[in-house]
Amino acid sequence: MKKIGIAGYGSTKFSKNEIPIEELLVESTKQVFDSTDNLSQDLIDGVIVSTNDNSKYLSAILSELSGIKPKISHTVEHLCSSGTNAVISAFSYIASGLADVVLVAGGDTIGNPGQVLEWDKTRGEFNHPIYWGSLFTKHHKRKFNTTEEELAIVSAKNHKHAIDNPNSYSHNAYTISQIMNSKQITDDLRILDCSFPCSGSSSLLLASEDVIKKFTDTPIWISGIGQKTDSASFAKNNLSELATTKMASNDAYSMANTNPNEIDVAEIHDAFSVCELMAVESLGLSKKTESAQFIRNLFNTENRKINPRGGLIGAGHPLGATGISQIIEITQQLQNNAKKRQVSNAKKGLVHNMSAAATSSSVIILQS
Amino acid sequence: MKKIGIAGYGSTKFSKNEIPIEELLVESTKQVFDSTDNLSQDLIDGVIVSTNDNSKYLSAILSELSGIKPKISHTVEHLCSSGTNAVISAFSYIASGLADVVLVAGGDTIGNPGQVLEWDKTRGEFNHPIYWGSLFTKHHKRKFNTTEEELAIVSAKNHKHAIDNPNSYSHNAYTISQIMNSKQITDDLRILDCSFPCSGSSSLLLASEDVIKKFTDTPIWISGIGQKTDSASFAKNNLSELATTKMASNDAYSMANTNPNEIDVAEIHDAFSVCELMAVESLGLSKKTESAQFIRNLFNTENRKINPRGGLIGAGHPLGATGISQIIEITQQLQNNAKKRQVSNAKKGLVHNMSAAATSSSVIILQS
Repeated sequence: MKKIGIAGYGSTKFSKNEIPIEELLVESTKQVFDSTDNLSQDLIDGVIVSTNDNSKYLSAILSELSGIKPKISHTVEHLCSSGTNAVISAFSYIASGLADVVLVAGGDTIGNPGQVLEWDKTRGEFNHPIYWGSLFTKHHKRKFNTTEEELAIVSAKNHKHAIDNPNSYSHNAYTISQIMNSKQITDDLRILDCSFPCSGSSSLLLASEDVIKKFTDTPIWISGIGQKTDSASFAKNNLSELATTKMASNDAYSMANTNPNEIDVAEIHDAFSVCELMAVESLGLSKKTESAQFIRNLFNTENRKINPRGGLIGAGHPLGATGISQIIEITQQLQNNAKKRQVSNAKKGLVHNMSAAATSSSVIILQS
Repeated sequence: MKKIGIAGYGSTKFSKNEIPIEELLVESTKQVFDSTDNLSQDLIDGVIVSTNDNSKYLSAILSELSGIKPKISHTVEHLCSSGTNAVISAFSYIASGLADVVLVAGGDTIGNPGQVLEWDKTRGEFNHPIYWGSLFTKHHKRKFNTTEEELAIVSAKNHKHAIDNPNSYSHNAYTISQIMNSKQITDDLRILDCSFPCSGSSSLLLASEDVIKKFTDTPIWISGIGQKTDSASFAKNNLSELATTKMASNDAYSMANTNPNEIDVAEIHDAFSVCELMAVESLGLSKKTESAQFIRNLFNTENRKINPRGGLIGAGHPLGATGISQIIEITQQLQNNAKKRQVSNAKKGLVHNMSAAATSSSVIILQS
């Protein structure tokens, strides 16, 4: 398989402002052009939009507004992991030989109605993410004796990291005590345990090794990909682990010929605090049942290995942009270009993006 | 590039009934299982849904309802050409080596609100397809002296073909006179010049040459692919031709190492009668300015070379299913399995699918 890498990127700020989806996508795309050497519209073979927005034909509209006339052009949607799915689709277009250069633009708006999963009427209140977040949290507390303080540390760490991310939704350094005393939403979740939907867009340029040197001297390569969709009825899930994350990461490690011990920095899908604890275990980044201690140690030593840009909890969660913004962060880390967020000597990074109570997961491994 | 072919297919009836999108997708997918040798859920690496429906996470929901646990799973949307875009995406996943077997399930419901392009408020009434259909028709009449009878022949031919398609929306043999006297919608369009949105779903199984023999003794291969998205503002279009169709078909002919003279049967995107006339010229299937005479000759000689299943006008146009149902028809033709619709000795076939006044087009060439 030919090598495929990240040739450029751009992102809007993530905010609570109501901004039309087209405007968001155009802004992050403009930043790709502004920050990428020698990029012109005619060099782009494909434009893929990642979004949960109900607007149609957005890749053609973005192309029109950006002066691109692509061959490949369509929208990809897969709820919260739309972004990584769009990137993996772009990867496959390039690997197949149908394209050399593909732009992936992801975004969502805070007012997007498409964020509640309505298909299964038997779920009652469980059609909203807050309910599976509660279910996971309650189970984790019971099974592993996880404390509210341990959960609050995840949020405190990620909010702290987000302060050094200029695009993040939150720039507040919440204390553990503030988080533990924030507004209670359910028996097991407080408001500061949750990520927030918001408006934002992130875009990436992917290119084959044949042409990538034209755009960057420091390409970051996609070396591993893993994906898994299990039952969309999370009631069947084993609540003790993120089973699809485990399967996806095994495939990604295998494709990249690496293992969790070699991962220097990771973007984790912390839709709720408990998700970060579950994910670092399922990805093999911490030992089983030791995730809370692992995250506490990172927090206490100001180690930014996990979610250096602030995670979904600190940076915000504009669904279609999230997976793409995670890849941008790892790219900047591996380029030694993450400024105050920089993890020292990062050579290999991992992105973990998931949907709907981890009923599906994507894992991407990048390296310099 | 490795060879990739059609390993199985299934389709619902196209109807005016309000049927939930999940039910439609499950039905056509069930038909793929019922009609494909040795297919079991665990052999499917990817599930891609093609739709304009606003429901999210449909590929995971379809997977859950069908017992599939795929790696790759997401929705593809690109208005009326969502179906071919999803198939080309599946092709690229297989060609890249990320998958061996991918199910593509397309569908839309008659009540789907997502069929009007609302992004450009300056278009006024022109955000509805009927208006660009009128614009194309008026231009064709003026520029090429195309008569109302010539336009009506397209519709008469396709309605006639649809009678022998058990899944088609219409089973009425309209006379040329009935079509010319049907309800007037605009100065240049009557109701029987138009295709109809409807409820329906079509699914395809794609597989690599390494594994396809397990599923079928008569695989049909995808030998050519071409795609082009031009300005999404069709006001800039040259109205005398389908420019994106021309560019896409040139790429598809080139990839398949063939030319229009070798195409035995073609599915054409006749959203309106005039589109079929424009498309056969832009695809090189008829000589420039001779499309009306070309179609008249087919009609008079009962030659089914163009739109044997009845086209969008006769078979109906459930947006996300259309491109897939076109590929199924060509597959059946090349397998000599199209019953009363069979074109004799068909070896190479072409599918033409487009969106929004041909602001984008896909062309796929298949061969036995």
